[in-house]
Amino acid sequence: MNKADFSLKALEDKIDKKTKPIGSLGVLEKISKQIGTVFQTMEPKIKQPHIVVFAADHGIAQHGVSAYPQDVTRQMLTNFLDGGAAINVFCKQNKIALSVVDAGVNYDFPSNTTLISAKIDKGTHSFLSGPAMGKAQMELCFRKGSEIVENIAKQGSNCIGFGEMGIGNTATASVLMSVICNFSIEDCVGRGTGVSDEKLQFKIDTLRKAIGNYHGQKDLDSYLAYFGGFEILQMAGGMLEAYRQNMIFLVDGFICSVAFLIAFKKNPAIIDNAIFSHQSAEKAHKKLLDYLGVSAVLQLDLRLGEGTGCALVFPIIESAVAFLNEMASFESAGVSEK
Amino acid sequence: MNKADFSLKALEDKIDKKTKPIGSLGVLEKISKQIGTVFQTMEPKIKQPHIVVFAADHGIAQHGVSAYPQDVTRQMLTNFLDGGAAINVFCKQNKIALSVVDAGVNYDFPSNTTLISAKIDKGTHSFLSGPAMGKAQMELCFRKGSEIVENIAKQGSNCIGFGEMGIGNTATASVLMSVICNFSIEDCVGRGTGVSDEKLQFKIDTLRKAIGNYHGQKDLDSYLAYFGGFEILQMAGGMLEAYRQNMIFLVDGFICSVAFLIAFKKNPAIIDNAIFSHQSAEKAHKKLLDYLGVSAVLQLDLRLGEGTGCALVFPIIESAVAFLNEMASFESAGVSEK
Repeated sequence: MNKADFSLKALEDKIDKKTKPIGSLGVLEKISKQIGTVFQTMEPKIKQPHIVVFAADHGIAQHGVSAYPQDVTRQMLTNFLDGGAAINVFCKQNKIALSVVDAGVNYDFPSNTTLISAKIDKGTHSFLSGPAMGKAQMELCFRKGSEIVENIAKQGSNCIGFGEMGIGNTATASVLMSVICNFSIEDCVGRGTGVSDEKLQFKIDTLRKAIGNYHGQKDLDSYLAYFGGFEILQMAGGMLEAYRQNMIFLVDGFICSVAFLIAFKKNPAIIDNAIFSHQSAEKAHKKLLDYLGVSAVLQLDLRLGEGTGCALVFPIIESAVAFLNEMASFESAGVSEK
Repeated sequence: MNKADFSLKALEDKIDKKTKPIGSLGVLEKISKQIGTVFQTMEPKIKQPHIVVFAADHGIAQHGVSAYPQDVTRQMLTNFLDGGAAINVFCKQNKIALSVVDAGVNYDFPSNTTLISAKIDKGTHSFLSGPAMGKAQMELCFRKGSEIVENIAKQGSNCIGFGEMGIGNTATASVLMSVICNFSIEDCVGRGTGVSDEKLQFKIDTLRKAIGNYHGQKDLDSYLAYFGGFEILQMAGGMLEAYRQNMIFLVDGFICSVAFLIAFKKNPAIIDNAIFSHQSAEKAHKKLLDYLGVSAVLQLDLRLGEGTGCALVFPIIESAVAFLNEMASFESAGVSEK
């Protein structure tokens, strides 16, 4: 069958004729319809699934908004390269390729690693009283993110998951969500990797101050340069490219969903290709998913990042494709319909 | 390390020292603690995972409480044996062994199939105005279910999932839940495989009448013989055995959870070994999980049965074990703690 013969109606009909009550595979049926529609085929195949972890440092981290010291970004990248992090374990288990991107870590990595170098700078500036980056850097983030995803698509992948690592990046993500959605900062802030009550209030106060100090223009790109993070903007650029490459893409948790929000504001059509892998324990994530009008596949109280939600949801994506391709129909199995 | 050296404290400590914020793997951390505790080891391994689908017919189905004709039970068993059902596809994908049990289907299967024969009778009697089965049959269900699980344990499996197939069995499960938990029948009835509004009201009325017609003793075993289903009671017997064999066992959806309820009433300790794989679209399922004080891992709006929830949750169970065994610690990876 070629693409011209594809129709959503025919796909739905195929799903409804499988030997199961209509609709009884719930969310899996939605996923299989989405994937079939994106690939314009009744027999979709996931090819060479790939997760990319974008890492960068954040100037705002120097104000004590994270539970961990900034150096942990670099240390965790080394851990990714050594295969010891959660994302390594889950990618290995589920046979997903993994790439790690230095989008702007405050450290000079040796050039002989498997790290993808897309370094914009050695971390952003603090946006507490000035811009995190220049407009040219902001634009470069989108280009670099796009190039990375284009390369992965060229290697034959049609399914990509986005993940991130960066001490302080929930602070950055919260501020971006607040200014883009026009929500109060309280509604956009959570405990990140696990700050205490006291530190949470301090984080809110600090970010409110940062937003109060902003007197720039109120358009998206101005916000992104002033409050952005290198890895978040590279992910946004990557998602726009994943859509252009007609890939299915998996969105991880809160920070990754903020990257999606940014990309979505630039091209709302990308939502057709996105699967929101999980709803994180970060309370602002639920608010953001509601704002986007989407729901996540898993609710596992994850708050780790790294793309771990994408890796964990992947077998369910495969199940959605497998039942569509492999299950018998009422007719082929000789089972009576209602 | 031998079992004498195991402690929950040491296991929690191992989890907390992994290179991730404390608690950030959410539900996965709970699962890994549960599995480590059941197996009394810091390095649990899932061995030879197995799903068993128990199938039987229900006399109550003759009163029009299901969307499908009774013969579909037999037809779907043939589909299971031919590999065309959803549970076949998901078991194959996730490398789970699958067994299918004739607990009491209204059909004489040829003896040359791979079906496990544990037939009690060719379906129960209708419990609308008399008992579904005799007490001896009820007891035989528990013994047969137990034997099947014992055999699987002897083959080296330490993880078993329970599934079911039986036209009319949501009606049976609803009545059992109602009489055992003392909930109104309305709170225990759902659409099963998908009855219409009108049929739903008819289903409620029919089941209320059946309960009203009961004048037997108000103890568990009397209820089970009067309102039981062969596959539901065999699953309950199987779960009690899975606990005795120190297996982890996966509970599928609503009907399977009613089997758990029965087994739990006989031995509350079994809850330590149970993982509730998903919360189904059947509204009574949420009420039952709340009654049991448990929550399910997945919320995918499934309402298919067959053990499909067990098969779909299995990769997440494996992830919970994998991170515990394979992730680096802060110390081994040289990552700074808080």
